Amino acid sequence: MTAGQAGPVAVVGVGLIGGSLGLALRDRLPGLVVRGSDPSPAALRAALGRGAISTAADSPEAAAAGCSAVFLAAPVGEIPALARRVLAASGPDTLVSDVGSAKAGVLAALGPAERERFVGGHPVCGGERPGVEHARADLFERATYFLTPAPEARPDLYRRLHALVLALGAHPVAIDAAVHDRLMAMVSHLPHVIAAALIRQAAETTPSGREALRSAGPSFRDLTRVAGSNPPLWADILLANREALGAVVADHAARLTEVGEALRRGDRAWLEAFIQGAAEGRERLRQEEPVPAEAAGPWRVVIGVPNRVGVLSEVATALGHAHINIEDLDLRPAGPEEDEGELELTVAGADAARRALDLMSGRGFRARVEEG
Amino acid sequence: MTAGQAGPVAVVGVGLIGGSLGLALRDRLPGLVVRGSDPSPAALRAALGRGAISTAADSPEAAAAGCSAVFLAAPVGEIPALARRVLAASGPDTLVSDVGSAKAGVLAALGPAERERFVGGHPVCGGERPGVEHARADLFERATYFLTPAPEARPDLYRRLHALVLALGAHPVAIDAAVHDRLMAMVSHLPHVIAAALIRQAAETTPSGREALRSAGPSFRDLTRVAGSNPPLWADILLANREALGAVVADHAARLTEVGEALRRGDRAWLEAFIQGAAEGRERLRQEEPVPAEAAGPWRVVIGVPNRVGVLSEVATALGHAHINIEDLDLRPAGPEEDEGELELTVAGADAARRALDLMSGRGFRARVEEG
Repeated sequence: MTAGQAGPVAVVGVGLIGGSLGLALRDRLPGLVVRGSDPSPAALRAALGRGAISTAADSPEAAAAGCSAVFLAAPVGEIPALARRVLAASGPDTLVSDVGSAKAGVLAALGPAERERFVGGHPVCGGERPGVEHARADLFERATYFLTPAPEARPDLYRRLHALVLALGAHPVAIDAAVHDRLMAMVSHLPHVIAAALIRQAAETTPSGREALRSAGPSFRDLTRVAGSNPPLWADILLANREALGAVVADHAARLTEVGEALRRGDRAWLEAFIQGAAEGRERLRQEEPVPAEAAGPWRVVIGVPNRVGVLSEVATALGHAHINIEDLDLRPAGPEEDEGELELTVAGADAARRALDLMSGRGFRARVEEG
Repeated sequence: MTAGQAGPVAVVGVGLIGGSLGLALRDRLPGLVVRGSDPSPAALRAALGRGAISTAADSPEAAAAGCSAVFLAAPVGEIPALARRVLAASGPDTLVSDVGSAKAGVLAALGPAERERFVGGHPVCGGERPGVEHARADLFERATYFLTPAPEARPDLYRRLHALVLALGAHPVAIDAAVHDRLMAMVSHLPHVIAAALIRQAAETTPSGREALRSAGPSFRDLTRVAGSNPPLWADILLANREALGAVVADHAARLTEVGEALRRGDRAWLEAFIQGAAEGRERLRQEEPVPAEAAGPWRVVIGVPNRVGVLSEVATALGHAHINIEDLDLRPAGPEEDEGELELTVAGADAARRALDLMSGRGFRARVEEG
């Protein structure tokens, strides 16, 4: 089954992200039924009015019944409870996914059987303004869309989610849930915490705000732009990632304390090396930015996948961590007489195919490469 | 003497700021002789070529000799030694000022007699790129230009600097040197430290830079823009303000540690209040931004200034801290038979005049207000 042949899809929560999911799926997969539910009747009416959903349901359970896939686009703190409800109310072949910015906590809240049909997702995109009225069909275009399959994740359902994400125009990237959470803590949640701490400190300790803002450097103004936005939403986001974020916040505080000690010592060499290290770090991060998509033809990497739990998530996550972009994914389960099925990945170009082959062989998988 | 009748002015260090000072002064005060010196002969030639200076001198002392004012536009770490040299080499009526971003350390490095002729300054402006080739006559246009007169500062020399700053198109604001340094630590130096610490942490701890940058939120990207720029220059800047900055860095680290504790407790109410406080802090800082200049006529505030050291710096700093913008400043020293001279300030509008009057009366000065 490809995304184009998918059965009805449900979107639980029709705000900016949920509404955009509906718009994008209906745009890319004409004829697809998209059912929506939302605790706010007004939001649900607005989503219908905008064509973000084709049918309104009066509960998550009603929306999910008989669907091939359900996207939970509710506030991140509500995801675990909602996932359990929707998993219980939907059929044995329904994929359930979410769009929250913290992934490990949701998986930990579910049981092994629930994790077979729940595959977490996190599209890295968003808009300045919330609500379905700002939803856009192209919100996911070229965005990184993290997928965090647990070892128990059913390969056919992972494949269905991968195909839907491709249909959105996004780049699916499999990643370990804990690695994902540390990454988001570092590049998104910590900067928000710093922004809030910085603006509070400025407001509380400077003799007057007027001079402070008149004399603020560009980095202070850049920072204050996000500070204090949507307190309930951000309290949820920070809390949903509390473990990874706590460690990253403590690390950052320790680094600042080191700077304070160097200042006390008057240690010019240390301070210069500290800033020089930042210049080098920035350069390193830059060099690792994705190279523009090469005009490379499709190659197939065919991997023998034994009949044991966790193989799909292991393969997908290993390729994701190695930045090997999977353009398509097909699956032939093991037959009754076979020990192994086959996972067929399409990647761009001979180089990506060779790297995938090396990686899989190194992990003990039987794998081969085919052009075209 | 007004700025227009000033004698030669020297600019020691003809980089972006020094070069722009020369361009602006020569543009606004036609006929003014601007002498420049710089350790780099190439920079000095370039400054001559761009018309930023009218004469090149081969040492700070040679540039300063016979000048009415000398601006030290050298790296901030070199200012104290340079100030002593130039004060020693110049005449008893030469004003010496600087443009560094930390002020208390310079004053502390000078003796009381030196502080009579040295009045610190700090134009809050700058460009992306250093060097006289990027200097602009309008760099100071509408910029806040902090002045930090010590109690010993000679009123006539303070007035000369005030007039020159007005001639540049900037807004002179008197401020206590220690208050200035804490303010800059908060809104400029700490954000630079954070930016460097954040990019180092990301480069050192994320599994790979590529995913980090692909998934980075806008606040992370905003921050990384300034991180690591010009390590020797920034090491000097941080070190020049080490006392105030050390306190501000420690305060920030303590705030982050509190966030870490709230995350450990899972304290949603605390986290929401923390972010809500940032929203309120930002609002407070915004409300105190300068109101657009009212179409208000000039009012004069005439203040009796007794014959004692420190009166000028007290009056100017008190008005600066109260955000009363001094548009012009005139001075009538006490005559041989008088206990008091008069300081005449021009401010915009009756409201500013009344506030200045209240402030000065409250401090025990004899003061009156005159329209027009």
